[in-house]
Amino acid sequence: MSMFQTIKEQAYEANMQIPAQKLAIYTWGNVSAFDPDAGVFAIKPSGVAYPKLTVDSMVVVDLDGKVVEGELNPSSDTNTHLVLYKEWAVKGGAKIGGIVHTHSTYAVAWAQAQRPIPLFGTTHADHIQSLVPCTPYITKDALTRNYELETGNLIVKHFADEGLHPAETTMVLVAGHGPFTWGASADKAVYNAAVLEEVAKMATITLQVNPAATQLPAYIIDKHYQRKHGPNAYYGQKK
Amino acid sequence: MSMFQTIKEQAYEANMQIPAQKLAIYTWGNVSAFDPDAGVFAIKPSGVAYPKLTVDSMVVVDLDGKVVEGELNPSSDTNTHLVLYKEWAVKGGAKIGGIVHTHSTYAVAWAQAQRPIPLFGTTHADHIQSLVPCTPYITKDALTRNYELETGNLIVKHFADEGLHPAETTMVLVAGHGPFTWGASADKAVYNAAVLEEVAKMATITLQVNPAATQLPAYIIDKHYQRKHGPNAYYGQKK
Amino acid sequence: MSMFQTIKEQAYEANMQIPAQKLAIYTWGNVSAFDPDAGVFAIKPSGVAYPKLTVDSMVVVDLDGKVVEGELNPSSDTNTHLVLYKEWAVKGGAKIGGIVHTHSTYAVAWAQAQRPIPLFGTTHADHIQSLVPCTPYITKDALTRNYELETGNLIVKHFADEGLHPAETTMVLVAGHGPFTWGASADKAVYNAAVLEEVAKMATITLQVNPAATQLPAYIIDKHYQRKHGPNAYYGQKK
Amino acid sequence: MSMFQTIKEQAYEANMQIPAQKLAIYTWGNVSAFDPDAGVFAIKPSGVAYPKLTVDSMVVVDLDGKVVEGELNPSSDTNTHLVLYKEWAVKGGAKIGGIVHTHSTYAVAWAQAQRPIPLFGTTHADHIQSLVPCTPYITKDALTRNYELETGNLIVKHFADEGLHPAETTMVLVAGHGPFTWGASADKAVYNAAVLEEVAKMATITLQVNPAATQLPAYIIDKHYQRKHGPNAYYGQKK
Repeated sequence: MSMFQTIKEQAYEANMQIPAQKLAIYTWGNVSAFDPDAGVFAIKPSGVAYPKLTVDSMVVVDLDGKVVEGELNPSSDTNTHLVLYKEWAVKGGAKIGGIVHTHSTYAVAWAQAQRPIPLFGTTHADHIQSLVPCTPYITKDALTRNYELETGNLIVKHFADEGLHPAETTMVLVAGHGPFTWGASADKAVYNAAVLEEVAKMATITLQVNPAATQLPAYIIDKHYQRKHGPNAYYGQKK
Repeated sequence: MSMFQTIKEQAYEANMQIPAQKLAIYTWGNVSAFDPDAGVFAIKPSGVAYPKLTVDSMVVVDLDGKVVEGELNPSSDTNTHLVLYKEWAVKGGAKIGGIVHTHSTYAVAWAQAQRPIPLFGTTHADHIQSLVPCTPYITKDALTRNYELETGNLIVKHFADEGLHPAETTMVLVAGHGPFTWGASADKAVYNAAVLEEVAKMATITLQVNPAATQLPAYIIDKHYQRKHGPNAYYGQKK
Repeated sequence: MSMFQTIKEQAYEANMQIPAQKLAIYTWGNVSAFDPDAGVFAIKPSGVAYPKLTVDSMVVVDLDGKVVEGELNPSSDTNTHLVLYKEWAVKGGAKIGGIVHTHSTYAVAWAQAQRPIPLFGTTHADHIQSLVPCTPYITKDALTRNYELETGNLIVKHFADEGLHPAETTMVLVAGHGPFTWGASADKAVYNAAVLEEVAKMATITLQVNPAATQLPAYIIDKHYQRKHGPNAYYGQKK
Repeated sequence: MSMFQTIKEQAYEANMQIPAQKLAIYTWGNVSAFDPDAGVFAIKPSGVAYPKLTVDSMVVVDLDGKVVEGELNPSSDTNTHLVLYKEWAVKGGAKIGGIVHTHSTYAVAWAQAQRPIPLFGTTHADHIQSLVPCTPYITKDALTRNYELETGNLIVKHFADEGLHPAETTMVLVAGHGPFTWGASADKAVYNAAVLEEVAKMATITLQVNPAATQLPAYIIDKHYQRKHGPNAYYGQKK
């Protein structure tokens, strides 16, 4: 049995949630699961359809981008995942155990529209306290250097510029491309991808019904986030 | 067997209709079933995913908010349910046997847009004779006192201000948050939640097709409501 | 066995297509099947959920509105069906063997918007050569006399006023209410209800993408209709 | 066994993907599979519902439009397929092994709106590097000569006029009608039909969220296309 069995299983299970939650069609989208102690992550192989995935087909990659286990090519987006783990989980100390990239319909539409998603309601505030940020387009220079790696850097820089923290704002739109989400586990990262798609759909309809819709007042945002995630959170069951 | 077996079963069955009718994803949404004689209601436990619910996991709460049966924490929205039962069913004498809160997509969007849903057609008039009201945002003071309890008070006050009666208008949008619906039973309350979502979707498309769409004439509203709910109702079968 | 077994079976099968094609939720919508020789039609019982329908529960009604077989109340919309069969099939000689009323989402939205559906493309022209007509609201006088019967008269009068023929234009929107469709058989009538819902959805998105979208040129409309329905039709297989 | 067994099986399998991917309802839509050596293609029989299709019911047609195998009438759109194979695969040398026509909702809406679909994002650029072209309406003269054959000519001429190449731009909208897509195989052609529908939906929502949304910068378009389809493509697995 692989010494990376746990993250391979986590990655497999979370990848299979992509079609189950209708977050992408065909081979689009990918999930990785990170082992911070080993400094490696397991990720979907590139271009393989979900029904053909197995635990064994997951590819294990280290933080230098070297494949340490697996016979298939890892996702073409592997270097984006790598940068986020390296910058945020390792250097930044954020508890990030999984990353997801999808082409879910509404989230992609907002990325294509190059608009951050306004915080219109409590469905959004239950999960993050900021709008869903949207990066600028990647520059031609960055793209030419290393497209996927620089996409990771673009996200990291945008969070720094906007004063956002990845442990709190667990999702981002890359302009013209689509969403990346993350979480304490691969499973939680897929949950956040589903939340983002639903929030994006709700925001679209909100603007359709009222183009002048306003952001939720700050005190309600804070209340909803705190009752789920704050030190005195009272949503859910005691762990 | 529990002395609250009946409402626990009603609450369980009705909660399971939330995912079946696609009115919320994951753990979002909650249903309660009220026993007016015992003065208690059974409600979904907080943060538990629908596939893991059982009749036994339902939490029984009295009208002072005390858990009288069940080992899990009740829904974080319990105090909102409590106020509506106390003010409308007990004090007001309205026949309310169940309450539902969901995050269904279109109803949430209208709540986020802070717009009551106009009464555009007979699908709406078959169920309620008024627009679907939308409260203002909860105030900071009220939120600070007791968020969920004051959300209940906000709804009750809005109905009084607008001259609406909960036995006739069985649904409301809480601004920036989402819908609450109710009915003579928990089962009927979920039915009303599904009606609201469909009515909200129809109204959205109506405005898209004709931004100047007008309300249904009062005599048609009255006819449709009366043929289903009036003293000479002739819709359906004799009971 | 009932002497009306055939139309009861046709009505049952066609009613069960309403939920199968997602043309209505719960008990909304109804289909009837007409026997022109016997001058009776079989129709869904009022307010009964689709999963509980059986062939035996279909109600047989004559053209005076008298129930000639069945123990349940017929659909509350029975008199609308009755008028269309009487005026169009019996008096007008049109080959109408089934009628459908649904609350399908997009068709209802256009009815609420009080807009006929423009003939934007060949999907529409493959089935009817006119726009999908939309009646005015029923008048208060007519509604007071006999709502459902006068809804039938409203449709018949609107077709006469607009110079439309029910054998060619097999669908209508009743303002503020929803669609009625018909066809040579109950099965064909439900097919037309599904066509209408799809055409209504396509027209909604067409206007969203291009608010100035124009009607399909007349020569293309004619070609598409004739290749399916004209004397030299070449769509499909020889009968 | 038929000497055309392979393309009949390919056509059958690909046609069954139309309802599976929800690209059309009832009998709408058709797929053909081409054998360039034999100069024939297998296509869906006209007006037959998908559940009733079999491999044996596929109709084999040569490039003069003569049925060389099969007892049913071929799709009424057969001559459109024929022109594209003849002009692009035989004369033009493009590797086209399958063609699809659907009435998928969003693609039809854009065709009805007579708007090419802008290249807003990487989901689009992963598949084609141009916008999705939209032909003008077919002229009355052309329609009168031979509607379906001239629809093929209209597409071929539009590609020439716009400087597009069918090996790169594998999809088109015919104004007022709907989409045609193609690919190296019938299976790939259906995949492109599903991609087009998703891209059309994403573009619709993009414009809804930002009516001034701009095209993806050329260097990102190029990068995404090349990483999947260029000489140094690194998406997917080695063949």
